[in-house]
Amino acid sequence: MTTSPTRTGDPREVVELSGHVLDTGLFTRVLDDVRSLGGDYEVVRFDVGKEHDDPSTVRLAVTAPDTATLDSVLMRLHAHGANLVDVEPARLTVVERDGVFPADFYATTNLPTAVRVGESWHDVENPEMDCGIVVDVDGEGPGATVRSVRTVPVSDVRAGSRVVSGAVGVRVTAPARVQGDDSGFTFMQSEVSSEKPQALVVRQVADEMRAVRASGRRILWVLGPAVVHTGAAPSVAALVRGGWVDVLFGGNAVATHDVEQALYGTSLGVDLSAGRGVEHGHEHHLRAINAVRHAGSLAAAVEQGVLTSGIMHALVEGGKDFVLVGSVRDDGPLPDVHTDVLDGQRAMRAQLQSPERGEVGFCIVVATMLHGVATGNVLPSHIPLVCVDINPATVTKLTDRGSAQARGVVTDVGLFCATLARELTGSEV
Amino acid sequence: MTTSPTRTGDPREVVELSGHVLDTGLFTRVLDDVRSLGGDYEVVRFDVGKEHDDPSTVRLAVTAPDTATLDSVLMRLHAHGANLVDVEPARLTVVERDGVFPADFYATTNLPTAVRVGESWHDVENPEMDCGIVVDVDGEGPGATVRSVRTVPVSDVRAGSRVVSGAVGVRVTAPARVQGDDSGFTFMQSEVSSEKPQALVVRQVADEMRAVRASGRRILWVLGPAVVHTGAAPSVAALVRGGWVDVLFGGNAVATHDVEQALYGTSLGVDLSAGRGVEHGHEHHLRAINAVRHAGSLAAAVEQGVLTSGIMHALVEGGKDFVLVGSVRDDGPLPDVHTDVLDGQRAMRAQLQSPERGEVGFCIVVATMLHGVATGNVLPSHIPLVCVDINPATVTKLTDRGSAQARGVVTDVGLFCATLARELTGSEV
Amino acid sequence: MTTSPTRTGDPREVVELSGHVLDTGLFTRVLDDVRSLGGDYEVVRFDVGKEHDDPSTVRLAVTAPDTATLDSVLMRLHAHGANLVDVEPARLTVVERDGVFPADFYATTNLPTAVRVGESWHDVENPEMDCGIVVDVDGEGPGATVRSVRTVPVSDVRAGSRVVSGAVGVRVTAPARVQGDDSGFTFMQSEVSSEKPQALVVRQVADEMRAVRASGRRILWVLGPAVVHTGAAPSVAALVRGGWVDVLFGGNAVATHDVEQALYGTSLGVDLSAGRGVEHGHEHHLRAINAVRHAGSLAAAVEQGVLTSGIMHALVEGGKDFVLVGSVRDDGPLPDVHTDVLDGQRAMRAQLQSPERGEVGFCIVVATMLHGVATGNVLPSHIPLVCVDINPATVTKLTDRGSAQARGVVTDVGLFCATLARELTGSEV
Amino acid sequence: MTTSPTRTGDPREVVELSGHVLDTGLFTRVLDDVRSLGGDYEVVRFDVGKEHDDPSTVRLAVTAPDTATLDSVLMRLHAHGANLVDVEPARLTVVERDGVFPADFYATTNLPTAVRVGESWHDVENPEMDCGIVVDVDGEGPGATVRSVRTVPVSDVRAGSRVVSGAVGVRVTAPARVQGDDSGFTFMQSEVSSEKPQALVVRQVADEMRAVRASGRRILWVLGPAVVHTGAAPSVAALVRGGWVDVLFGGNAVATHDVEQALYGTSLGVDLSAGRGVEHGHEHHLRAINAVRHAGSLAAAVEQGVLTSGIMHALVEGGKDFVLVGSVRDDGPLPDVHTDVLDGQRAMRAQLQSPERGEVGFCIVVATMLHGVATGNVLPSHIPLVCVDINPATVTKLTDRGSAQARGVVTDVGLFCATLARELTGSEV
Repeated sequence: MTTSPTRTGDPREVVELSGHVLDTGLFTRVLDDVRSLGGDYEVVRFDVGKEHDDPSTVRLAVTAPDTATLDSVLMRLHAHGANLVDVEPARLTVVERDGVFPADFYATTNLPTAVRVGESWHDVENPEMDCGIVVDVDGEGPGATVRSVRTVPVSDVRAGSRVVSGAVGVRVTAPARVQGDDSGFTFMQSEVSSEKPQALVVRQVADEMRAVRASGRRILWVLGPAVVHTGAAPSVAALVRGGWVDVLFGGNAVATHDVEQALYGTSLGVDLSAGRGVEHGHEHHLRAINAVRHAGSLAAAVEQGVLTSGIMHALVEGGKDFVLVGSVRDDGPLPDVHTDVLDGQRAMRAQLQSPERGEVGFCIVVATMLHGVATGNVLPSHIPLVCVDINPATVTKLTDRGSAQARGVVTDVGLFCATLARELTGSEV
Repeated sequence: MTTSPTRTGDPREVVELSGHVLDTGLFTRVLDDVRSLGGDYEVVRFDVGKEHDDPSTVRLAVTAPDTATLDSVLMRLHAHGANLVDVEPARLTVVERDGVFPADFYATTNLPTAVRVGESWHDVENPEMDCGIVVDVDGEGPGATVRSVRTVPVSDVRAGSRVVSGAVGVRVTAPARVQGDDSGFTFMQSEVSSEKPQALVVRQVADEMRAVRASGRRILWVLGPAVVHTGAAPSVAALVRGGWVDVLFGGNAVATHDVEQALYGTSLGVDLSAGRGVEHGHEHHLRAINAVRHAGSLAAAVEQGVLTSGIMHALVEGGKDFVLVGSVRDDGPLPDVHTDVLDGQRAMRAQLQSPERGEVGFCIVVATMLHGVATGNVLPSHIPLVCVDINPATVTKLTDRGSAQARGVVTDVGLFCATLARELTGSEV
Repeated sequence: MTTSPTRTGDPREVVELSGHVLDTGLFTRVLDDVRSLGGDYEVVRFDVGKEHDDPSTVRLAVTAPDTATLDSVLMRLHAHGANLVDVEPARLTVVERDGVFPADFYATTNLPTAVRVGESWHDVENPEMDCGIVVDVDGEGPGATVRSVRTVPVSDVRAGSRVVSGAVGVRVTAPARVQGDDSGFTFMQSEVSSEKPQALVVRQVADEMRAVRASGRRILWVLGPAVVHTGAAPSVAALVRGGWVDVLFGGNAVATHDVEQALYGTSLGVDLSAGRGVEHGHEHHLRAINAVRHAGSLAAAVEQGVLTSGIMHALVEGGKDFVLVGSVRDDGPLPDVHTDVLDGQRAMRAQLQSPERGEVGFCIVVATMLHGVATGNVLPSHIPLVCVDINPATVTKLTDRGSAQARGVVTDVGLFCATLARELTGSEV
Repeated sequence: MTTSPTRTGDPREVVELSGHVLDTGLFTRVLDDVRSLGGDYEVVRFDVGKEHDDPSTVRLAVTAPDTATLDSVLMRLHAHGANLVDVEPARLTVVERDGVFPADFYATTNLPTAVRVGESWHDVENPEMDCGIVVDVDGEGPGATVRSVRTVPVSDVRAGSRVVSGAVGVRVTAPARVQGDDSGFTFMQSEVSSEKPQALVVRQVADEMRAVRASGRRILWVLGPAVVHTGAAPSVAALVRGGWVDVLFGGNAVATHDVEQALYGTSLGVDLSAGRGVEHGHEHHLRAINAVRHAGSLAAAVEQGVLTSGIMHALVEGGKDFVLVGSVRDDGPLPDVHTDVLDGQRAMRAQLQSPERGEVGFCIVVATMLHGVATGNVLPSHIPLVCVDINPATVTKLTDRGSAQARGVVTDVGLFCATLARELTGSEV
């Protein structure tokens, strides 16, 4: 392996990282951070541990378009225990005003840290994250001696103190492999979070759907009943009519509540136009089921003019496919529901690669764990799967069960569908 | 108390409810259900239990515009143990097709139930909710004897069976006071749910804000940092500019991340325009704090051209008030933050009834438990308070702590603010 | 209705409550509070609103064993807007030390409040909860004039101030019916909370099980697979062997993971004795299923010596009943699983009132929403149902679907089962 | 790098993995899986991608004590796209009974898969996870042609079919880097889960505490008020008396509710001995605060005999340290509470390395996000930190904010503390 500069003349420093670099996923995070902060890298040397307990050592040449960016990258790499190979003294800047750091102050991690002053390294007395480093020196010039090197929070720094600027001359000790690694503890690097910019995610999903449709492949939706309870049925129906839903997977509940809303304006007893709760209201969903059983099927109910709106109506009218599979908690069920779960699984598999209908190219699961996991079970890994739910546990479960291609969106189902429908169909439902 | 018919000629039946009608909140639910299903009521008799363990008895005359509605109301009241006073035999309808009930079938509760056939009451053998009741009779006419009265799920009913139609001639036994009432058990009548039509709720909040502004009172927002992480800062800034935010309460975090986004385009390390994670990225928020400390205050940072966008910028530009109160987890903090929490509480109180600025008439808490509870603590009960969070526990806590006027909206904070801003300002952020 | 003193000589006051007393459930809460604080009541007068929009008025005579308790009750009733009928001036106490109230200070609500000084009522300027009330007076004696009556937090009270003591002479205005009542808002009086003393709850469940078993009725358990993942299988097996499990309802997953643990020591890839994760490990559960399919049934696998431990083994050995019903997400399934959900429902119903086996008298649902709701659907209302889950949403859903007898316990499933097994069987698993 | 066999004679195969092996953390997972299934490895060749977009190629020699284990490891590595270097035909076994696979059947992933039959590779038509692979052949011997190679779920396999056994002759295609990687999507590899064997975790925490105490370092507890609400205060007090709590960090709330329980037997209005709710009950906590303010401090309240039980009492009696820092939502507060948050932070820092008291060696955070994050902010990285909460979001947040040494336990706080106290002190509270 050889070294080749990415661009001649760009600022460049070589850092070294050693320890259980691969086992802990550390190396991946280091590379990601270099890129995300605007830098680039080459692997200068890589000595991989031959056996499980051997440490590895990596040297990276890091470059960046300018010194400030490079400084920022180097400071970040400190959080992973990557130090500069070249040894130079730290740069110290005098604080001008109480409670204010110089603009390029070194922001600390909570790792063991040392600062090079003159010819020697000095341990930071009290590692603490998100502080600056103050160096106290007695005397001046070559004969000066370092009295203390310590972290100071910004509110406690005083004018006249000398604070470390930039990452040169600062060295941290890599975090050891966490001791509890083989225990039952929960190690958290969770990225399941509701604190994400969701409007952006809606646009990304819309873009993926556009690409899949343009390629002639089909879009599969897997829906739970909360889609109806949250008032999203008109949005989903608009998406069906707009050609953004080719196949639907679901259970008895989503179809029943959709029909209930079409027939009675309620969903599990909630009057959806007024938002007013009709307590329990169980008769409505039972009567909706009975009405479709009387007609014979959902398609017959549409044909007979019994069912005139909603998601199921739109699917029937548009000649779209749906597979409804029952569960032990069902009332009824609707006549279209597979009551044998193995039959249901076979019907789902048949839709994934239908010779007449074409291949599914994208799958979106909204507000259902049961049918989402069932779909994940039969889906090949190359079909992208997006899971939308207000409950982070649902999206986590879907992937814990092995659907590695799954991506999660933790958001409000009703507002998500409305925003997606507006993005794709222009309709304001 | 006298009886007065609500409208002469409307169908009318008298029902009786007895037991611990008041203690259990049952009476309230009965009255609500009559109204929500389209009926009306008069209290014909009310014998309230004098002491704690005495039962009460209530007679209600229930009316409805038509018999079908009245039937529907009477069936619902059965779920609460309210029976008709007049005794008539049940109406039986013969099932025409396997697996389909007659349209007006009686939908069961899971309470002990009896059906009147001829002159006598017959207990339903196996109470189960969401079924029909099949009556098997040996022989014909007056000499006929009842062989069995049992619940049957719709999928198991057979053509030729006789099924109870309507609520006449059906009697249920009121649920006894739940035995565990004084225990540490959790009795659930929770209405905190994410399964609500949120688009409707946004419009209701918008209407309330319009009314408060029209009345000359001020609108108070209490914000947590997730407002910025979810990409909602531009929406909130648009609401500030549109005049929909008069006062802001919050902590160091929301202001810091808002400034961080304005200065670096990130919030706690997430690049909000690309939705791309910049791991940790702690320097950015520290440097944002340091920059404002260098300027001297948020207002000074705006004046010096350091801070040119975001929520805090909009508040400063618009001359709006804000109270930021620190907490023990803060970095920095920003110079505008009250580090003494009692000082902070006093500043919050001063805003509620400011002689110069006028009175707060509406309060909306978004994505913060700490500052939401703090605001609930100092808010008089007559000021409406709406709490928006993706986590049901946050809204529940706010009210458990005594803020009875609080209403909760469990939804995605980012999409909620974007939808509200579009509704109130027409802006598409 | 007449008045009868509960015990002659006990301190007694009459309070009045008016407004939408019944509609809002207020009356129930008032009666509960009187009792929970150690007082008693009689209803002296009750004028119930005849029609829906008419207000009601109630007069209660409240008694307590001593004046301090009565004071405490009266202060609490203020939070509900119940005021004393007799009008006397408030009692004022002089504060002795800065920042400390007198011991019997009146603790405020956030309702509009007035204090009687001399012959007239004075509005509290700034209602705020959890404060004291300071009365400032100019002059002395009969000619004195009230300058201000205001709430003061304990940290701001100063020596020499006059603070209201006790509830006499304080009047609050009842909260109006919350305006958003008919909206889609979420009104929270949630009692689903994880902040409860769970050790106590375990003892209560144990007591109920003892009573049911002593009465000769059967105990039904409904289990989800998390019972096995959390390491609770040995505890549940001990309960089976101890005779505390008569029937089991569940799905393919709980039985599969129980067998997987018995055969391989893992559950969905987690090595349960070491707590060490075996990523995915999907083969294990598939091979467990295949092994039982090869044997022919769970009973055959026990007989052939293939299955020698775990919950299913204990059930087979003890001749206990179980009903396993499949779902669309199942792998396999095990040969004992009903793949048709209507068949499964029928098998569940047959267990509830088995002529040979006797009646189910208690039902406990642990860590499963699907099978919990399914069981709630077929359970008569008189059978107590306890639902244990770490996720509050699961217990909430179970009751929202109509199982009013359900009580929830939000706790760790593994520790709950271990503690219950120790309580009932003495076994330390 | 050279090859050295781990043990001569052990079964051994060489696999190759290529693609973005490092960027995606794949390599780490591969190595972990080899070990967790009982195998071992050496790195035979490692060609690391020099620049960011270059793929890497790794060859691993995998060994195991026996062929069955090696087979199991090789099948697992398929899930990561690692294939055998040596090419041999797949081994086919004839199915003996409908619905039952041979014991060593190859369990599929959902990746694109090919099977070697004779001299050529055949793509599996319909990749689906958790199935077997059936090979249909026309004819016999060398002239035979492969008609189809497809996945079949166990319930659909028929006697006479030929099923792939073992991993030899099966090849999968590595998952490409997930395309949405740079998006705002949530990629889930979450390990925050409540489905863990918690009894084991309690023992691990106990062992760590024993080791830290034996080494002379101090144990720091950070507590939220839910510790008291869940009835855990007596357990924690027992731990204090047993010498397992050297320092306590917390807020006004945990100390107030602890004192409230000591004085009134309630915590925020819940009667903890009966588990019975006393609605709101706000006076109690206010009166508890007032009583301690009257005494002058917690220590004075203990000395004066006002405070005689609970956590704070045990700390005072044992001469232990505590730092209480206020927040904006506090009532009171107690006189011991730092109302200035920067003062509070300084007091916390001073405890971490107290010259007189010694160094903190272990930190446990129970049921508090605010004080947990605050502690994480000031803690050096080498001090282990365990976070216990029933809410997964709390533990996730703690680590997202940068405390990489944090490990989470999602469990019931009350049962956790009771079990830990029994483990460490033998006390049954």
